[in-house]
Amino acid sequence: MNYRMIAKSIGTVLCIEAACMLPSLLVAFICREATTVPFIVSMLITAVAGLALLSIKSPISRLYSRDGFAIVALGWIHISVFGALPFILCGSIPSVIDAFFESVSGFSTTGASILENVEALPKSILFWRSFTHWMGGMGVLILMIAILPSVNASTINIMKAESPGPSPGKIVPKISETAKILYTIYIVLTVIQVVLLLAGGMPLFDALIHAFGTASTGGFSSKNTSVAAYGSVYIETVITIFMFLCGVNFTLYYMVSKRNFKTLLRDEELRFYIGIVFTAIILIVLNTGGTVYRTIGESIRYAAFQVSSVITTTGYSTADFSIWPTFSQVILILLMFIGASAGSTGGGLKCIRILLLAKIIKREIAKINHPSAVQTVKINGRIVDEETLSGIMAFFFFWMLIFALSVLIVSLEGKGLITSTTAVIATLNNIGPGLGSVGPMGNFADLSVLSKLVLSVCMIVGRLEIYPIMLLFTPSFWKRGNI
Amino acid sequence: MNYRMIAKSIGTVLCIEAACMLPSLLVAFICREATTVPFIVSMLITAVAGLALLSIKSPISRLYSRDGFAIVALGWIHISVFGALPFILCGSIPSVIDAFFESVSGFSTTGASILENVEALPKSILFWRSFTHWMGGMGVLILMIAILPSVNASTINIMKAESPGPSPGKIVPKISETAKILYTIYIVLTVIQVVLLLAGGMPLFDALIHAFGTASTGGFSSKNTSVAAYGSVYIETVITIFMFLCGVNFTLYYMVSKRNFKTLLRDEELRFYIGIVFTAIILIVLNTGGTVYRTIGESIRYAAFQVSSVITTTGYSTADFSIWPTFSQVILILLMFIGASAGSTGGGLKCIRILLLAKIIKREIAKINHPSAVQTVKINGRIVDEETLSGIMAFFFFWMLIFALSVLIVSLEGKGLITSTTAVIATLNNIGPGLGSVGPMGNFADLSVLSKLVLSVCMIVGRLEIYPIMLLFTPSFWKRGNI
Repeated sequence: MNYRMIAKSIGTVLCIEAACMLPSLLVAFICREATTVPFIVSMLITAVAGLALLSIKSPISRLYSRDGFAIVALGWIHISVFGALPFILCGSIPSVIDAFFESVSGFSTTGASILENVEALPKSILFWRSFTHWMGGMGVLILMIAILPSVNASTINIMKAESPGPSPGKIVPKISETAKILYTIYIVLTVIQVVLLLAGGMPLFDALIHAFGTASTGGFSSKNTSVAAYGSVYIETVITIFMFLCGVNFTLYYMVSKRNFKTLLRDEELRFYIGIVFTAIILIVLNTGGTVYRTIGESIRYAAFQVSSVITTTGYSTADFSIWPTFSQVILILLMFIGASAGSTGGGLKCIRILLLAKIIKREIAKINHPSAVQTVKINGRIVDEETLSGIMAFFFFWMLIFALSVLIVSLEGKGLITSTTAVIATLNNIGPGLGSVGPMGNFADLSVLSKLVLSVCMIVGRLEIYPIMLLFTPSFWKRGNI
Repeated sequence: MNYRMIAKSIGTVLCIEAACMLPSLLVAFICREATTVPFIVSMLITAVAGLALLSIKSPISRLYSRDGFAIVALGWIHISVFGALPFILCGSIPSVIDAFFESVSGFSTTGASILENVEALPKSILFWRSFTHWMGGMGVLILMIAILPSVNASTINIMKAESPGPSPGKIVPKISETAKILYTIYIVLTVIQVVLLLAGGMPLFDALIHAFGTASTGGFSSKNTSVAAYGSVYIETVITIFMFLCGVNFTLYYMVSKRNFKTLLRDEELRFYIGIVFTAIILIVLNTGGTVYRTIGESIRYAAFQVSSVITTTGYSTADFSIWPTFSQVILILLMFIGASAGSTGGGLKCIRILLLAKIIKREIAKINHPSAVQTVKINGRIVDEETLSGIMAFFFFWMLIFALSVLIVSLEGKGLITSTTAVIATLNNIGPGLGSVGPMGNFADLSVLSKLVLSVCMIVGRLEIYPIMLLFTPSFWKRGNI
């Protein structure tokens, strides 16, 4: 294990984080808020810690796969801890565990909140809270790869550990180029959305907050009643479409920019994702139309928004789905687990994994009919090797195991099955609101410190797809001689 | 596909079923019940159908793997349909779908009931209801293999398809000998329990009913309040112990009878099973002692019974766990999925699968630390081949997929998340009672015909471990030329 390089990388990440506090400081300055000094202090603490780590000399710069995992896991824990500083120092969230929870929720793009009245917060704090979403959406380490000139070929291992999905590919041969392309697409999507929201009459500040929350599939809002506060069909439509777009594999946008429409059209994950979104909307419209909502138009409006929000694991809400019929609730819960596409900013198990698992099952049934035939599993016309398939199946069980154990610990609260279960579903899959007392109209404030810690771990585990964090729990990771 | 042999085998099974109605007829005769004639009619219909199928001539007796699956799947559907005849003809359950549900629930050893007042039923009907448990527990087709002299070597494929667990082994080289040994162990366990229950002052009829329900891990009782009706610590203790014993792989009892204690002691699944049972009991005692129950003794009594009942998927109850704290409820729900050991009469995913899945995950984490090392997964000192591991992982996803889709359909009822979810958990894992309105003090009577059908399919799918039933849904199974 290359401990020195790991420390150096974390130092770099913290310096980037300190720099990322600048826009929030600017907001504090413009709005003449009392948070100006606390933001400067937060920046200084983060920068000093970063520079201290960065000053460590590392003779070997090569990173192995496990080093990449370690950098990502420890890097994310560090940015979450330091990201909590503004909340604490500005006095907005005095409790340390609550501030940490909110910070983790921001970076992991979960959007679960312990705040009861966000409208009472200073604008600079709201900005920082949503900016953590934006940083976490594409990944802070990918940002590091994109902006630093010094990265070498082995940083692919960092990217592998941070990118969602079973097998993140390089778009172009050079890894730093790939990172730049991804961030460019990300910025373009964010900017277009800001412009469209401004066109709908949304104030610039709100437009930025909601564009950050949408592009990253995070879900923090500057309003207590989330996007419902605007009561605007136009704004809801824009956000619905952009949530959907940010749940698509970003590689496909690069293909489109290169006029490679063939890849786009034959992409099986995209078709699967679109198919599920439309099926879910239709089923919920049929289930809620005429009962919960009077007109079919109203039904489509709310169904489309909530489906788009939940499958991309954004977590914005315009309707309290706690009062929807059981059938519609079950659909939303299933979407929470399925999640968005690999290579998007969304969380959950990811469409491609579900698609491949379905294909594996098809093969298992075929094996009974033709026991001796060798059958392969293909995606987009290419054979998926058995090791990848095995990894995806193991991943699915691992996800469910962490889900089950987390529910078990959270259930110690005694808040009932629905709240315990959906609190974990909502955090592990990086969605935000669950059902019951953590539903779209509730929040996570009332939970115990233990539950908040467990759910924080769930958020990071979910965002980083388990393994980087699990590595930290293995004894061999901490062995000195293991270099 | 050897259709003729499949039809013949189903004919044999139906003839066995007709013969199995004899004890119930005897009960009707002894108790001078009005059900005597209906039982004779049921027997005749079943026997005639069986003989008609049996008369089909089959030139080839060889059975392939898929033939075994087909015999088991179709055989179970047939015995369930004909097994419903006594309920309908005696007038005890006039609704055809309800009678089918009760019959499936019996044979699959689920124990979910649509009956609201079982104590009002004729004794012969109660006897038949519980006898279906006993037949289904070890398997009707294994009974066929055990008693018929004509079976050939290829009947191993029937046994494979009917036995629970990932890789059912032959105890002795000859398949019919293995089946005989299994049934002998099964009968011995049943008889000992009857004797012990009689010793506790239970009437013979009740002792038989509860021994059938326990040995098969079924759960039908002759009392409305299940085993709680006796209010006897002795009876509860006997049933707790026998539920636990029937969740152990029956092969181990054979080893014990051969004085091979080494195999018993080093059996990893057994250790895992015992470990989970005791951990669950301790956790529930700590969680309910002092709150739900006044004394620690009371707490142990109810915790041990419910844990034993749920992990073995029996479903007897002495306490309404709907009112237990959330933590204890979550433990029970997890136990419902884990299930008993492979090669026992219990349902669920089976301990060995969970154990192997945990080992697979351990290996996945080890792969990050040592990417190039080849790592194997072992059980009881032997390497498990990758194909089996892959099959178990696929099985887990398949189980969860069927679970999710069934919940989706049942949720159309609009009975709430808890009822919809636990109704499926309780039937797919062959337990019986769930939570909410299908809890230990409720029943399945109020559900719609659609839900009852879906849950019936869940019960058979759970008992036969998915694949035999899924085979019936593949187009190639129904192709004429596919012989």
